[in-house]
Amino acid sequence: MQLAKLHDTSTYLIAPDPGRAGLTRAISGTDHTGAPVTACVVEERPLTIFLNSQEIVTAMTIGDYPDYLALGFLRNQGMLRLEDEITGVDYDEELETVVVRTARKTDYEEKMRKKTRTSGCAVGTVFGDMMAGLDGVTLPQTQVRTSWLYALSAQINRTPSLYLEAGAIHGTVLCHEDKPLVYMEDVGRHNAVDKIAGWMLAEGVNAADKVLYTTGRLTSEMVIKTAMMGIPVLVSRSGFTAWGVEIAQQVGLTLIGRMKGQRFVCLSGEPRLIRDADPAAIPQEPRRAGRKAAE
Amino acid sequence: MQLAKLHDTSTYLIAPDPGRAGLTRAISGTDHTGAPVTACVVEERPLTIFLNSQEIVTAMTIGDYPDYLALGFLRNQGMLRLEDEITGVDYDEELETVVVRTARKTDYEEKMRKKTRTSGCAVGTVFGDMMAGLDGVTLPQTQVRTSWLYALSAQINRTPSLYLEAGAIHGTVLCHEDKPLVYMEDVGRHNAVDKIAGWMLAEGVNAADKVLYTTGRLTSEMVIKTAMMGIPVLVSRSGFTAWGVEIAQQVGLTLIGRMKGQRFVCLSGEPRLIRDADPAAIPQEPRRAGRKAAE
Repeated sequence: MQLAKLHDTSTYLIAPDPGRAGLTRAISGTDHTGAPVTACVVEERPLTIFLNSQEIVTAMTIGDYPDYLALGFLRNQGMLRLEDEITGVDYDEELETVVVRTARKTDYEEKMRKKTRTSGCAVGTVFGDMMAGLDGVTLPQTQVRTSWLYALSAQINRTPSLYLEAGAIHGTVLCHEDKPLVYMEDVGRHNAVDKIAGWMLAEGVNAADKVLYTTGRLTSEMVIKTAMMGIPVLVSRSGFTAWGVEIAQQVGLTLIGRMKGQRFVCLSGEPRLIRDADPAAIPQEPRRAGRKAAE
Repeated sequence: MQLAKLHDTSTYLIAPDPGRAGLTRAISGTDHTGAPVTACVVEERPLTIFLNSQEIVTAMTIGDYPDYLALGFLRNQGMLRLEDEITGVDYDEELETVVVRTARKTDYEEKMRKKTRTSGCAVGTVFGDMMAGLDGVTLPQTQVRTSWLYALSAQINRTPSLYLEAGAIHGTVLCHEDKPLVYMEDVGRHNAVDKIAGWMLAEGVNAADKVLYTTGRLTSEMVIKTAMMGIPVLVSRSGFTAWGVEIAQQVGLTLIGRMKGQRFVCLSGEPRLIRDADPAAIPQEPRRAGRKAAE
């Protein structure tokens, strides 16, 4: 049994566009019987991000929203400050580069000597002291209804996506109350989160009343990025690491993992939860329900 | 239904040790009913790798086999050469550092300026030209029986592991014919592969007749590492990216994805396969069979 796909995605400001040219490719091989098969496979291409004159990193990405990816990556690194005046974001498809320009003169040569390789992504997340960027971050005590979380989970799992199309990809969704707003996908879950951070920065979106949903594991990296974005609640259908939980508790972020069907575990920030839904009334997920998330 | 766990792991030279102190921690939270729950969660801790006097990277790892992780990481980066004389590998648990010393004087300052963030891990995989390390790599035409692949898959999925214990983790297994030999796990699949590379380097193991099995996606990063290790066959129960397949075809690596129950897809290197097993005779995986892999 497979859940019916969601047909009305009009609540989304940005929904996945699985049909979009350049995101997937047909790859032929042979199946277990030796018969020729063609699989629809996600692309993975380099995108080199510059901050002013300095090359910062080359990200492996499916290639959509390069401008948001660059902005969000730099913001989550603490290389772009909230007060920074962004004077330009120039994407060159041929050169596979994005240059973000700021009024402020920037130089992160020193910072970039220290690299941390996280479970999800190395230089992707953090240079130097992982917690440094979190100094002074305080997350608002926004209340969150469990009925919203169940509604979000059900909608997101049925939303047509590259994952449902081709698999081997992660999704992250910015949500408000029971509405998914922006659904980004990428080969690395860190890219999907950074694209959302970039969109929020570009649109000047308030983070205080938002919930972030991800298909990926709740590692230290994901928790740090979410806190950097000022989002008080992070939800995943996957598991979590001890350090991810520890950091969430330190910054007072509400962390919810293993959310599938009626089940979930709240590991941090319990006081934000309003348990207004009766779990018994929530259907279990059928075997092939929605996404299984990328491995 | 759940597959019975494998009790005899004696074919393994190194099998997972889920009970090992320090790899997991009990974390308490509340479940969907609001009842208190305790979850067994994998650790994630920093390990800073030095090559001689130079700090190369900080990896986020579960913390086992730091010496193999350091050796394998440096080897897969091309920073350790096969002919290098390794004069020492010093792990300091308190400082969370490993220093690898070589007779040859090393300096990768320049190389480290260029960073690539892959889907799995940024600096983890490749600096500069991703393909550079693969110049001159030729993989042997070792034949592989599909009966071996089915046998490996069945054994590995039933091997007691941190994944079965705590989830949110990846496994990679070095295999010979139908026998799994070395089974490493880590929060990032790149770490698990690097630990195997480090073990092979330390033990002087021949790669030509081996098969590498991973629970993770077949991204460009995984294919490059496998080729760097000289292993001709890479198998995964997960999906793949277009570039991962492309690189496998370029280096002539046999790439097999989505291997579950009787099913698999061969995307590259078909000529190595000897299809001696009747897929119809292979049982389908029951719903909760073995690992679902980390997300």
